[in-house]
Amino acid sequence: MDQKILRAAVVGAGYWGPNLARNFAASNRWELAAVCDLDADRAARVANAHGGAEVETSLTTLLARDDIDAVAIATPAGTHHAIALEALRAGKHVVVEKPIADRASAAAEMVAEAQARGLVLMTDHTYCYTPAARKIREMVADGDLGEILYIDSVRINLGLVQPDVDVFWDLAPHDLSIIDFVLPGGLQPKSVAAHGADPIGAGKSCVGYLVLPLPGGAVASVHVNWLSPTKVRRMTIGGSRRTLVWDDLNPQQRISVYDRGVDLETQALDSLERRAATISYRLGDTWSPALEEREALGSMVSELAAAIHGTRPPLTDGAAGLRVLDVLEAADRSLATGGGVSLVRAGTAPEPALTGELVAGGAA
Amino acid sequence: MDQKILRAAVVGAGYWGPNLARNFAASNRWELAAVCDLDADRAARVANAHGGAEVETSLTTLLARDDIDAVAIATPAGTHHAIALEALRAGKHVVVEKPIADRASAAAEMVAEAQARGLVLMTDHTYCYTPAARKIREMVADGDLGEILYIDSVRINLGLVQPDVDVFWDLAPHDLSIIDFVLPGGLQPKSVAAHGADPIGAGKSCVGYLVLPLPGGAVASVHVNWLSPTKVRRMTIGGSRRTLVWDDLNPQQRISVYDRGVDLETQALDSLERRAATISYRLGDTWSPALEEREALGSMVSELAAAIHGTRPPLTDGAAGLRVLDVLEAADRSLATGGGVSLVRAGTAPEPALTGELVAGGAA
Amino acid sequence: MDQKILRAAVVGAGYWGPNLARNFAASNRWELAAVCDLDADRAARVANAHGGAEVETSLTTLLARDDIDAVAIATPAGTHHAIALEALRAGKHVVVEKPIADRASAAAEMVAEAQARGLVLMTDHTYCYTPAARKIREMVADGDLGEILYIDSVRINLGLVQPDVDVFWDLAPHDLSIIDFVLPGGLQPKSVAAHGADPIGAGKSCVGYLVLPLPGGAVASVHVNWLSPTKVRRMTIGGSRRTLVWDDLNPQQRISVYDRGVDLETQALDSLERRAATISYRLGDTWSPALEEREALGSMVSELAAAIHGTRPPLTDGAAGLRVLDVLEAADRSLATGGGVSLVRAGTAPEPALTGELVAGGAA
Amino acid sequence: MDQKILRAAVVGAGYWGPNLARNFAASNRWELAAVCDLDADRAARVANAHGGAEVETSLTTLLARDDIDAVAIATPAGTHHAIALEALRAGKHVVVEKPIADRASAAAEMVAEAQARGLVLMTDHTYCYTPAARKIREMVADGDLGEILYIDSVRINLGLVQPDVDVFWDLAPHDLSIIDFVLPGGLQPKSVAAHGADPIGAGKSCVGYLVLPLPGGAVASVHVNWLSPTKVRRMTIGGSRRTLVWDDLNPQQRISVYDRGVDLETQALDSLERRAATISYRLGDTWSPALEEREALGSMVSELAAAIHGTRPPLTDGAAGLRVLDVLEAADRSLATGGGVSLVRAGTAPEPALTGELVAGGAA
Repeated sequence: MDQKILRAAVVGAGYWGPNLARNFAASNRWELAAVCDLDADRAARVANAHGGAEVETSLTTLLARDDIDAVAIATPAGTHHAIALEALRAGKHVVVEKPIADRASAAAEMVAEAQARGLVLMTDHTYCYTPAARKIREMVADGDLGEILYIDSVRINLGLVQPDVDVFWDLAPHDLSIIDFVLPGGLQPKSVAAHGADPIGAGKSCVGYLVLPLPGGAVASVHVNWLSPTKVRRMTIGGSRRTLVWDDLNPQQRISVYDRGVDLETQALDSLERRAATISYRLGDTWSPALEEREALGSMVSELAAAIHGTRPPLTDGAAGLRVLDVLEAADRSLATGGGVSLVRAGTAPEPALTGELVAGGAA
Repeated sequence: MDQKILRAAVVGAGYWGPNLARNFAASNRWELAAVCDLDADRAARVANAHGGAEVETSLTTLLARDDIDAVAIATPAGTHHAIALEALRAGKHVVVEKPIADRASAAAEMVAEAQARGLVLMTDHTYCYTPAARKIREMVADGDLGEILYIDSVRINLGLVQPDVDVFWDLAPHDLSIIDFVLPGGLQPKSVAAHGADPIGAGKSCVGYLVLPLPGGAVASVHVNWLSPTKVRRMTIGGSRRTLVWDDLNPQQRISVYDRGVDLETQALDSLERRAATISYRLGDTWSPALEEREALGSMVSELAAAIHGTRPPLTDGAAGLRVLDVLEAADRSLATGGGVSLVRAGTAPEPALTGELVAGGAA
Repeated sequence: MDQKILRAAVVGAGYWGPNLARNFAASNRWELAAVCDLDADRAARVANAHGGAEVETSLTTLLARDDIDAVAIATPAGTHHAIALEALRAGKHVVVEKPIADRASAAAEMVAEAQARGLVLMTDHTYCYTPAARKIREMVADGDLGEILYIDSVRINLGLVQPDVDVFWDLAPHDLSIIDFVLPGGLQPKSVAAHGADPIGAGKSCVGYLVLPLPGGAVASVHVNWLSPTKVRRMTIGGSRRTLVWDDLNPQQRISVYDRGVDLETQALDSLERRAATISYRLGDTWSPALEEREALGSMVSELAAAIHGTRPPLTDGAAGLRVLDVLEAADRSLATGGGVSLVRAGTAPEPALTGELVAGGAA
Repeated sequence: MDQKILRAAVVGAGYWGPNLARNFAASNRWELAAVCDLDADRAARVANAHGGAEVETSLTTLLARDDIDAVAIATPAGTHHAIALEALRAGKHVVVEKPIADRASAAAEMVAEAQARGLVLMTDHTYCYTPAARKIREMVADGDLGEILYIDSVRINLGLVQPDVDVFWDLAPHDLSIIDFVLPGGLQPKSVAAHGADPIGAGKSCVGYLVLPLPGGAVASVHVNWLSPTKVRRMTIGGSRRTLVWDDLNPQQRISVYDRGVDLETQALDSLERRAATISYRLGDTWSPALEEREALGSMVSELAAAIHGTRPPLTDGAAGLRVLDVLEAADRSLATGGGVSLVRAGTAPEPALTGELVAGGAA
């Protein structure tokens, strides 16, 4: 690969920024050019850990530099929109920590701006770049599971009650972004029902359920919970051919694929088109694919490089981030009505990226 | 105990009747007097397996006998109402296989008839008589868990798609009857939201989610699924003091009690009554109580005897059966509106039985 | 299959006899002709549960009948030898509950007698007829695991301290008979080391370890324990191609086959024949075969019928029973020397049966 | 605590040295004064990661410095003896990575040298400083388990076949050091039997079993295996009152304490002192203590500081390291005889340290 080594700047040196910086620095497609934070000391600690990166405290100064190809934004969600727009307008490609913004309208503007300028806008949906999620996406695309019948995702643990967001906005973006990633058509439910509970009086939902109808009578469900003493990270994807369970806390068998299920055969009985349904069971083997050990964030920065060099959007582009926000906002509206079914905004979320090959990156 | 040995007749010798017959025969409080089925051969096979029980093929003849104290009904749900009323009118105590009837109005009539005649009407909510459920009821009643914050119940497996009922009516009665049993006030949600999916075109829901608000901001959720290749039977009861997980498929540790959780302390900040919330974590031990090995159905028939001899209704009385139907019918209405929140009928379900001591029964 | 229906008599109506009776009665290859026990009532209870079987209280009378093809012996181990010899001398085929006898010399006499008379002598090593053990035998025979490198079997639980035998004789016959069954050459170790402990002063080993060298540098180990509060039934079979774990207490995934391991490649380095070893790892998928649900004892009685009709010994013949006793007696000698390595008697145990096809039996 | 901050030098900047350096640097009882390695670059990388530590490439120069209180040795095992003696003779306290030496005689010399000079010699048995091992030691010392009946330790995984040592020397030091740590009297078995297998032709044992008789008829067993595709880290400690299982790969429940077991009651029957044994079962609850999250190595360096400041040897002193080597050498002799029971050298290993309080350390 003779492609130019790209240069990245990380904006925000708090919790997530150092992880981004480390992965840009370790990648053979990137150089970490700068770390930018209002707090110069904080920026310097991150920059120093990775050799030659420069410290910037002014976003304007940073964006004025012409040796920066892309900006990675790891600031609070409320600031993503303003920083991203400024970066795009300065001609930089942009990757944004999830959620892409704090509201869908802001995300839509970011998507439009990137599109107008022919720049890459990527959402850092990190979980999508784990070997497990990549394997699942591949299996679904190859038809190994058949038609998707249901997706059930559980993400519960004793979690920090967040000061600014409820349990849906805190945890469900992970589930939603993964579902968006593995479904061939992306996550575009017509409606959402959200049920939240605040039994400890925290002032926001601490236990939550999302139910999203999928095409063809299928359904997706997400259960998030800050009050569970046990930790569960399990996503079940039921298909007409096979069913897959991703248990992320079982490193010895993260993915199990069950070659069994319920078969329904319908057949015309007579000229009156009455139909009889025969239901039968398939009992088959279970299979657990070996997964490579690779840091998700390393694959993410490689994907960003590939998108910049290439002609297709990144697998988790701005539109993917927007689709997640569309669902979360519909969930908010559902909660406001006490759990009523709420339509997801149509039209703001563009079509998902065509399925492209994941680009294998890696440190030199 | 010098109480009279009671005499039971089992009506219906199909799937469940033989289990009832076996437990009446094995109990030191009961004699199995008769087995009644339209199919004399089937009745005879059950009767012969337990010595002296007589075979009856006519319900009228059976009920005319004056040596029968109680009738156990194990016929299709649609026939429960008619048989139970006839038995009650003949002066017999009655226990009915779950669900108590195929519609709430029928159950309400049964409850009223039993009450008017001073007879025992019991629902055979078998799971409530497992050592695990009894232990949980006791712990909740003793305040070991504190205030109930949430209940999450999962009952999924590769299940036989039923010809007559959907996955809610097939599986959720178990979860609902257990929740009714362990909650001090019984299960009396104001509303229900039900989300069902039929992704295989079976003509009824095969995947289902129920969400029920509970008093004090708490929530109960039930997930039932016929299409899951893995079998899960897990109920989590989150409390303000402790959280309990019942994993019925782990015989080595069915119940785990976690002495950890999230604590919220609120305090007045100033005279304006502004309040600050401080959230903290408790990390404590886990504890798993030893459970006796006892067949649930044996405890159930003992409870029936105790209720007949005593002055209090059985722990799972007709009203408990009715409360479960009230929820299922509200779920049906919710499904009919595409998942809208549906009010549970108020007023049909009487108050639950006062907490009584479980009566230990057992074979001689 | 037009083969004659065979007629069986069960001798001993205690713990195991009823299970044998039930499976003979349910098989379409057998009729249960008689149940024999000194205690006529006990025999009658078993006979009555299966229709037309007759009750016998005299072994002599039973064996004099010419309508009995085979005798199944389920009496205390110390009586197996005498009863089996008498039955063989009366021309009956014989199957004996494990262990085949209480000492190897008795078993050898039984094997010789059956051979001299051309009759079938079978050991009821029930576990060998589970779907799991049959699958493992098939996979080993097909070379799916490659060369066997090690077998590690753990069988521990809170067990009844037996009045007459130690933990080795109580539990290890199961492990040894399974190892004998799955190894193509049967279990014929040259030596055994046994380490026992009696930390509660029971007068016999309550915790035990057996180590048996296998051909080619491989090793088998058996850990049995009556004092363990947790129950484990796990056998690991490490092979040069794949490794298999049988966890019998995990009904959802009893057998896991790991396509990973350590590869050692040796190559000549130079003319001095010095060799360098390169060790590498294979990391591959995990696979869990679907197993049919079938009662082991049903397959066992079918195998007995097949052996009687056919021309080959049963898969678990008398010689298999003898090989297990040879190991147990060598273990006794090892224990007597405080754990020293003890040679296994050579010559008493004939070669194992050639691998035959398991015969699928089943009730009509 | 007004005690002087101590100054440490780490010798060896390979695999383990950086971990030691990091923990000395993070401790509020230590300053990391120097990192010493023949490879100056390697030493510099470690030193630079922790601020002011100096780089040394000469051991002699290092030991001549008078600002160093203690030396932590993380070089190959064969060099421990020479470096430790030189350091002790220079008046430095010493902690040595496990195993303390490559042979018991060398370790004994190190122990004697430290004793003669009144210096602390500590073995870095890191696992002993995990919260789990500390909890177990405390429970055993408090009598919570009663008399120890058996210890069964399993440490298996797909492991790197080591060029210089077999599976016993590679893995068993962990198990043996933990057993030594939790047993009130330390690990001082009279004999050892070792059974090793080399089924892949690696030239050394790749699968191993150790059996060690303990006082009072108890037994300890260690199973180590480089060829297992599944990873197991499980130690069971059976006691007369309770049994404890440490499953280190289950972070949600590392320690389970089972309040059940087998009870043996013996009683005099008559004047002839014949005794009858009655065996009964206790079935009680299971309990899993909460464990703090703390890095073991942090506790280890605190313990070293406490031992230097105090008047008692460290919990894992040189004698503990020697006791482990005594067992490993006896295992070697057992292997050389094909698994015969081999006596453990008496007299080389001094008594274990009196039980002291673990010192809680921590970073400033």
